[in-house]
Amino acid sequence: MADGLGDLIYSRIGELARISDDPDRLTRIYLSPAHKQAAGVVAQWMREAGMGVRIDATGNVVGRREGSTPQAPAILIGSHIDTVRDAGQFDGCLGVLIGIAVVAELAARQVVYPFAIEVLAFGDEEGVRFPSALGGSRALAGTFDPAVLDECDEQGVSRRQALVAFGCDPGTIASEARNAATALGYVEVHIEQGPVLEAEDLAVGVVTAISGATRGVVEVTGETGHAGTVPMHGRRDALAAAADMVLAVEARAKGEKDLVATVGRLSLTNAAGNTIPGKVQFSLDVRAPLDAQRATAVADIKAAIARIAAQRNAAAQVTLTHDAAATPCDARLMQLLSEGIESIGLRVRHLPSGAGHDAMAFRGRLPVAMLFVRCKGGISHHPAEHASAADIDVAARVLLTFIDAYARDGGNR
Amino acid sequence: MADGLGDLIYSRIGELARISDDPDRLTRIYLSPAHKQAAGVVAQWMREAGMGVRIDATGNVVGRREGSTPQAPAILIGSHIDTVRDAGQFDGCLGVLIGIAVVAELAARQVVYPFAIEVLAFGDEEGVRFPSALGGSRALAGTFDPAVLDECDEQGVSRRQALVAFGCDPGTIASEARNAATALGYVEVHIEQGPVLEAEDLAVGVVTAISGATRGVVEVTGETGHAGTVPMHGRRDALAAAADMVLAVEARAKGEKDLVATVGRLSLTNAAGNTIPGKVQFSLDVRAPLDAQRATAVADIKAAIARIAAQRNAAAQVTLTHDAAATPCDARLMQLLSEGIESIGLRVRHLPSGAGHDAMAFRGRLPVAMLFVRCKGGISHHPAEHASAADIDVAARVLLTFIDAYARDGGNR
Repeated sequence: MADGLGDLIYSRIGELARISDDPDRLTRIYLSPAHKQAAGVVAQWMREAGMGVRIDATGNVVGRREGSTPQAPAILIGSHIDTVRDAGQFDGCLGVLIGIAVVAELAARQVVYPFAIEVLAFGDEEGVRFPSALGGSRALAGTFDPAVLDECDEQGVSRRQALVAFGCDPGTIASEARNAATALGYVEVHIEQGPVLEAEDLAVGVVTAISGATRGVVEVTGETGHAGTVPMHGRRDALAAAADMVLAVEARAKGEKDLVATVGRLSLTNAAGNTIPGKVQFSLDVRAPLDAQRATAVADIKAAIARIAAQRNAAAQVTLTHDAAATPCDARLMQLLSEGIESIGLRVRHLPSGAGHDAMAFRGRLPVAMLFVRCKGGISHHPAEHASAADIDVAARVLLTFIDAYARDGGNR
Repeated sequence: MADGLGDLIYSRIGELARISDDPDRLTRIYLSPAHKQAAGVVAQWMREAGMGVRIDATGNVVGRREGSTPQAPAILIGSHIDTVRDAGQFDGCLGVLIGIAVVAELAARQVVYPFAIEVLAFGDEEGVRFPSALGGSRALAGTFDPAVLDECDEQGVSRRQALVAFGCDPGTIASEARNAATALGYVEVHIEQGPVLEAEDLAVGVVTAISGATRGVVEVTGETGHAGTVPMHGRRDALAAAADMVLAVEARAKGEKDLVATVGRLSLTNAAGNTIPGKVQFSLDVRAPLDAQRATAVADIKAAIARIAAQRNAAAQVTLTHDAAATPCDARLMQLLSEGIESIGLRVRHLPSGAGHDAMAFRGRLPVAMLFVRCKGGISHHPAEHASAADIDVAARVLLTFIDAYARDGGNR
């Protein structure tokens, strides 16, 4: 039924990847010239798919296909067209282009549902330019904080100035907010950015939640000393204590499904090869699809750190710097995605998303669902990032089936 | 008998500490103006003690008190008057000033031995100015490498140029070498720079050996990944592997007397809080008074690192960068020092020196002995470095007794 959608989307992903702010690599920063050019190309593809198109107040490209009645509430299908620096081609763009292709397919089949469909190309998912991220999706969710308009990029250009230069009117951002009367739910297709689907030889998977995340910094203080003259038994080695703690963090997460915990940074103060380390700092990153699960893990890790510090006559200070709640996916939408996967003869794999996505912006505002597509080697944010045309085709067919099932299941409720 | 020597030495240490290359802290760099000035003061104190004095070809201050026959072989009593930057007062100077005070005491008592006594104030122990160190003591040991004359300091001044500017003739360095016909042995008094004597409430201790040292770098390679999307069981976390190795290094050394092993540096490549570390480097420093003990420990540590890497599906490369043999102290000289300690009613504590000293230069050339003096908190290379006048007095009395016992024990053998 959707034969060839994968090939079309795959080739458009390659086409979009040629639009970059950097000459020899893919970098498309929010509200940059490349973003502007990519938005224009995406808008053109939306028009060709029969959608009405506009650039909204935060620079999102909004394509809309009306339902059987005008101004019916819409299913939102979105992702982003901004990238990190030296990016891969698939992160974000895949979800936008799959949405456009699916709407084009519906138009070709002359299928009209009671609900509208909006395809959204957000521009501020990666958070490369300004301190905060998700400005575009938060505007739609009604949670855009006007204070971030004063955030500045490295060149001192404010978000407000950049929006105006892009042709947007920051004064109308609040009016972009969707609500239950205008939107039914938000669906996002995205590469997995992890190794799970590849390891299980599956083209797609259904996301259960975008994991919540706790981040923090641990500072361990022992006592510095001469590596030659202080006997082992009298030492208060801050690095040995930190090593013990790193292993405790790993051990706590290893024992539990869907929980991950990572020490990604570790540094020593006044380090020298012939000096017993006196002070060590390390980062902590704990993620889980269930907030209670994460809270328990963080408490256990803090207790383990305190215990190790006490055992080693050292001090440890844990400072939590970030605490983001999980975004659970909507059970009904997950069920419809699962039925779509089963309808094409594939096994349904549920998995959490450990990475953040635009879908997070809609937490508590709209029912949310995400479909993950297998990516090669789990690699992302890197030029080697890749999803196959065949897998993309599977995702497009699942999305088409999902929309059809959604209509049969009760439409706009 | 030697009442008041401690107070005199202590006050001279304070006097010498006022001679610095830096205005507000003690820094006395090899062949600097402060070194020149300090050498002059030391030479004057040597003359007052009845010694003949000269500055030798590497800038050492050499004070000589003849024995009962001219040109008799000498007992060498030495240490250094150069310092690290922002140094303590006692490291090095203590050993020089105690030697001078002891010779002055012998002169006052009109005691003459069959052997001569030379007091040596070396100038290049800390190795702050040029890449290599121990230039002064190596010249006396006959192991000075002329190639180091071309080494340059940070300002591009060569060791040769600096020596000439100091008034030395680098062409005569080889003639400074002592041998069995001219020197009987080398004795150095030095602050412990560690916590052992303080912990056991002892003023002095007899050094068994200057520990040999193996230093190296370990590079651990795992696989980088997204901290949110890669499940725990699939990770090849280079930092977790390194943490395991740090604890293995610690555990191996903890089990064995006089062995110390330290990871003083650890750094990550391309670290980020949300990234599983892919590459970690850390330093390794292993010291022991017995070379065989150290070799076995290093082999065991390398095996543990390889085992941990294999268990974690990571790679580890150990590169040894430095291997210095231990300098065992002479059993007869140790015995005479021990008798000196017992003669004043103190318990004899043997301990290795984990730090390097000028005495190392004489390894295999002359019998070597060292007497350690308790230092407060084990602190060294820091303005808080301190040894008490009472402990210094004990050391001076032990050294006097030692020389006397040496004469009774057979003099020049």
